[in-house]
Formats: sequence, structure tokens, C-alpha cells
Amino acid sequence: MGVYIQVLEDLQSQQQQVIPSEKLAEKCEVNSSQIRKDLAYFGEFGVRGVGYYVTDLLQAIKHFLGIDRNWNCILVGVGNLGRALLRHRQLPQKGFQIRMAFDCDPFKIGEHVAGHEVVCTRRLKEKAQLMQIDIGLITTPPERAQRAANHMMQAGIKGIINFAPTRIHVSSDVTVDYVDFSNHLISMAFRLSHP
Amino acid sequence: MGVYIQVLEDLQSQQQQVIPSEKLAEKCEVNSSQIRKDLAYFGEFGVRGVGYYVTDLLQAIKHFLGIDRNWNCILVGVGNLGRALLRHRQLPQKGFQIRMAFDCDPFKIGEHVAGHEVVCTRRLKEKAQLMQIDIGLITTPPERAQRAANHMMQAGIKGIINFAPTRIHVSSDVTVDYVDFSNHLISMAFRLSHP
Repeated sequence: MGVYIQVLEDLQSQQQQVIPSEKLAEKCEVNSSQIRKDLAYFGEFGVRGVGYYVTDLLQAIKHFLGIDRNWNCILVGVGNLGRALLRHRQLPQKGFQIRMAFDCDPFKIGEHVAGHEVVCTRRLKEKAQLMQIDIGLITTPPERAQRAANHMMQAGIKGIINFAPTRIHVSSDVTVDYVDFSNHLISMAFRLSHP
Repeated sequence: MGVYIQVLEDLQSQQQQVIPSEKLAEKCEVNSSQIRKDLAYFGEFGVRGVGYYVTDLLQAIKHFLGIDRNWNCILVGVGNLGRALLRHRQLPQKGFQIRMAFDCDPFKIGEHVAGHEVVCTRRLKEKAQLMQIDIGLITTPPERAQRAANHMMQAGIKGIINFAPTRIHVSSDVTVDYVDFSNHLISMAFRLSHP
């Protein structure tokens, strides 16, 4: 779905109102029967002989995915990866606003990164509860990931995305997703070994 | 598969030789029928009433995935994300060695990051051909991703992982994978909207 959104947003920014099915499939690098199957799900946005209405289709996909609204995020761990996320231009465009950045390193506390003042992680609960925070991003070293998750849970955050290469334990009402770069390398190694 | 590898490597570093099937399933956060199905693929590593032989199973998975060897990688784009990857301790442990780092910013060329001297991207072909480079990682801003891919293709690199949030065009003998952080946020938003 991410690909469809990206391609449709590109089309929208180019003021294109309609795109033929085959053309959309080509841009998304899927075949046209796959795209028809995927997009049929969102209702009748394809018009025979014409194609898809870009804005309507995009809106329907976003609504389905729950990204036709803003999501408030915080981030713990202002290292290189944390900074990359704080400076990521496309996350706010997609409705994901990183509201605050935390770190326990006294040399980082008070620093400004991409318009965010880095705050001591111990103040996470107090700070995060003032806003309605939906999603917490963990970009700490692995040995600090669990502590970051604990702070997030204490602040009532129900969705955690863990970029640190380690498993974390959360209570049953919290949803966790793991981002592990090495999986992409493993998958590439597999594809190159089995051409 | 990434989870299995991570858990099995943790067990191996703890000198654990055998693990009961249910225990392995629990650690990997899958159910035990799923794990039996997944791992049956790799041959008879489970022994009834005993469990799995950690080292043998890990070796079989790695062999299957093509990561029982070293893969030479290069990286183009020494921003925050590039630095995070260059400093990632687990990639070399998994057989992915980033051999060289390139950037076209004159202020970065000559800098040392995690033991790598940053080299001008124009010298990529010349430099990369001296080694057998398997995989190229693109961590540039989106507007420079295609140029990075072109340099990689000219150097004969057949696998490209693009972290820049844009589509790239490659020749048909090149495999591309996209890493898009916003997909993880979209997926989390979806899961939180559909509890």
C-alpha cells in the first residue's frame, strides 16, 4: 500500500487527475491484474477506459489505513537514526508528527534537532501525557530499548515501533513493530543467491 | 526468518545447545505449529522430546538464506541514516560488511566514519571494481538516489537497497529493495485504528 500512496501522491502533486490502470500498475511496479485486485477493495475508483481518479483513490486508501488524520509520535534516542527520523520530510506529510524527542545523555539534553528540543527521558511521562501521543519510536542502543518502552507504556502510549536491534517486552494492550535493517540485507542476499 | 536468526544467535552466545520447540516459539513470538512448519523446511533439526539443536538449525537457516558467507556492501550518502548504518554493530556480525562510504559533499569527503574514509561518489566505479561488491546501500536525499544507483550499476553492482524515499530505475539484471520507514508508521496507524 505504501507504494500506491507514494505514486498517487506524486501524481497529485503533478496535478494529474486521472491515471489509466496499466500506467498506474507500471509506476507501482506491479502487474495490472494485481493492482485491480488490490484497489477493488477500496470501491469503484476505476472507470473502464478511463482509469483511476487520483484524489478519490488516494483518499480512500488513506481512510482505510487510518492515515487521513494526524498521529502524534515521540522519539526516544537522539543518535544518528533518531536524527534521521526527526529530519525525515515525508513523515509529517503522511500525517506522522514527531512531537518530542528524548534522550538520557546529558550532552544531548537541551540540544535542538530539526526544531525539537531534546528532553531528558525521565520526563517522558510528564511531557507526553500533556499531549495525546499515539506512537513511540525507539531509536536507542539495544541495551536501552526496554527502558524506553517502559517509559512509553507509563505514559499510556499504545503503539511502539522499535528500531533498536533487540526484542522488547510490552503489556498485552500495546502493539509493537520491529524495524530491523538486517532483514532487508538478508532478503537481498537471498534474492542474489537464488536468481 | 530474521527473528529466528536473532533468537538463535542470542541462544548461541549464551552457550545454549538445545532449545525445546515451545520455548523457541515463545521467544520468537510465534505459535508452536507455525514454528514447526517454518523450520521443517530446513530438515530434521527438531528432536521429539528434546527440541532444536541451536547451532545446526542456525547454520541451516543461514545457508538457506545465503548468509553463511560474507557480503561486500558499499554505501552512498553519509547523512544521519548513512552514519547509523556504518556504525550498525549487527550488520558485520550477520555477514554484511560495508567496505566503503561515498558522498558528493566536499565537506564530508575525507572524513572518517566508523573506520571508513568518505570518498567522492564520482570515484565509486573505480573504487568498487577493485573489490567484488555485492550490494549497494543508498542513503542519499531522494533527489540524488537515482544518480547513486547509476554509479552502482556502472560498477557492476547487482543488488541495491534504497533507503531514500523515492522510486529508482534500474536495469533488468539489478535487484532493488526499498526501505521506507513511513510504511512501518502506516502499518502501526492501521493496527491502532483497527484494534
